[in-house]
Amino acid sequence: MVHQQQLRFSTSGRGTFNIGPQVDEVISQSGIQQGMCQVFIHHTSASLILCENADPDVRTDLETFMKRLVPDGDSMFIHQDEGPDDMPAHVRTVLTQNALSFPINNGRDTLGVWQGIYLWEHRTNPHKRKITVTVMGE
Amino acid sequence: MVHQQQLRFSTSGRGTFNIGPQVDEVISQSGIQQGMCQVFIHHTSASLILCENADPDVRTDLETFMKRLVPDGDSMFIHQDEGPDDMPAHVRTVLTQNALSFPINNGRDTLGVWQGIYLWEHRTNPHKRKITVTVMGE
Amino acid sequence: MVHQQQLRFSTSGRGTFNIGPQVDEVISQSGIQQGMCQVFIHHTSASLILCENADPDVRTDLETFMKRLVPDGDSMFIHQDEGPDDMPAHVRTVLTQNALSFPINNGRDTLGVWQGIYLWEHRTNPHKRKITVTVMGE
Repeated sequence: MVHQQQLRFSTSGRGTFNIGPQVDEVISQSGIQQGMCQVFIHHTSASLILCENADPDVRTDLETFMKRLVPDGDSMFIHQDEGPDDMPAHVRTVLTQNALSFPINNGRDTLGVWQGIYLWEHRTNPHKRKITVTVMGE
Repeated sequence: MVHQQQLRFSTSGRGTFNIGPQVDEVISQSGIQQGMCQVFIHHTSASLILCENADPDVRTDLETFMKRLVPDGDSMFIHQDEGPDDMPAHVRTVLTQNALSFPINNGRDTLGVWQGIYLWEHRTNPHKRKITVTVMGE
Repeated sequence: MVHQQQLRFSTSGRGTFNIGPQVDEVISQSGIQQGMCQVFIHHTSASLILCENADPDVRTDLETFMKRLVPDGDSMFIHQDEGPDDMPAHVRTVLTQNALSFPINNGRDTLGVWQGIYLWEHRTNPHKRKITVTVMGE
């Protein structure tokens, strides 16, 4: 059995957004009891992560880390068409995930208690982002 | 067909642990001949990698690289509740993998001859870690 | 349904190679309408990325970024058996992807309009690389 559904999100600019509730809703609607779930983002300047979900400082620190690792407006970047955050957004996406994949058991996600599903917007301006959730199993 | 099984590991603290034999045992028990295998870790401070398995220096060098990239006790991190290795463990996890995925053929993993499956413990203290292996196919 | 096929590529040395057309050919041959596609590379010194496919400067900048992040011949690396690009190739592989995974819908990949599938050769010399594409669904 395959169940597939698109989700749309409007981000308010750079930052992490908890999309776990919407993903869990798709899993629930699929009726699939055991198998796997794939969450895919159709973009090259926003990505997905599983991240600690209890203390928001963790995601603040992740942002701080990435800003240091891939500085906006770095003069080594040629590609700056859409501004100083353009190329860093592509690099951040390549260093994180386009797709998350995790097991389904008992009709539910099996994420650890501290694992949250986040959309990471890497552009400084708000964007509309498309995600597809695919659940496969029996 | 779906076959799913949990594995438990006790790590001795920061470092990489070869979990290939246990994953291969699950694949063998599944009876699935062709499809895919997903190995998932239910934590945010330990991760999974496929890494060169011949020379242990490679994994030593990976550790050295990560220590330089994400220094323990870095003063830029706010989240330090569980010590200087707390936030670095979350960053290392985000930069590597929560889930590995590879093809199954002829009832076996199809990993390259140099590809080993490693659990990477990022905390300095020993931890118990839970992994789920899901094999799907026919 | 499971459809699985191997692809072989000869790289001309370090750089990114668009393998989207060959992957799409496998998806088309599979006859699978809805499900997921996994693209897996059987190596530890070459990897896969989904990357912006319009402006080649993006991939030039990615290369520049990686050269700075993981310098060839870095004296902190012990493992240098095959030259100054040996250990950096392993690190680059661990920081990117061994496997890409994305949804299939309407018998086609659902990649975003700017998402291209690239094999990233991390060794400076030409290599032969093996990839397996697995399509599962209905």
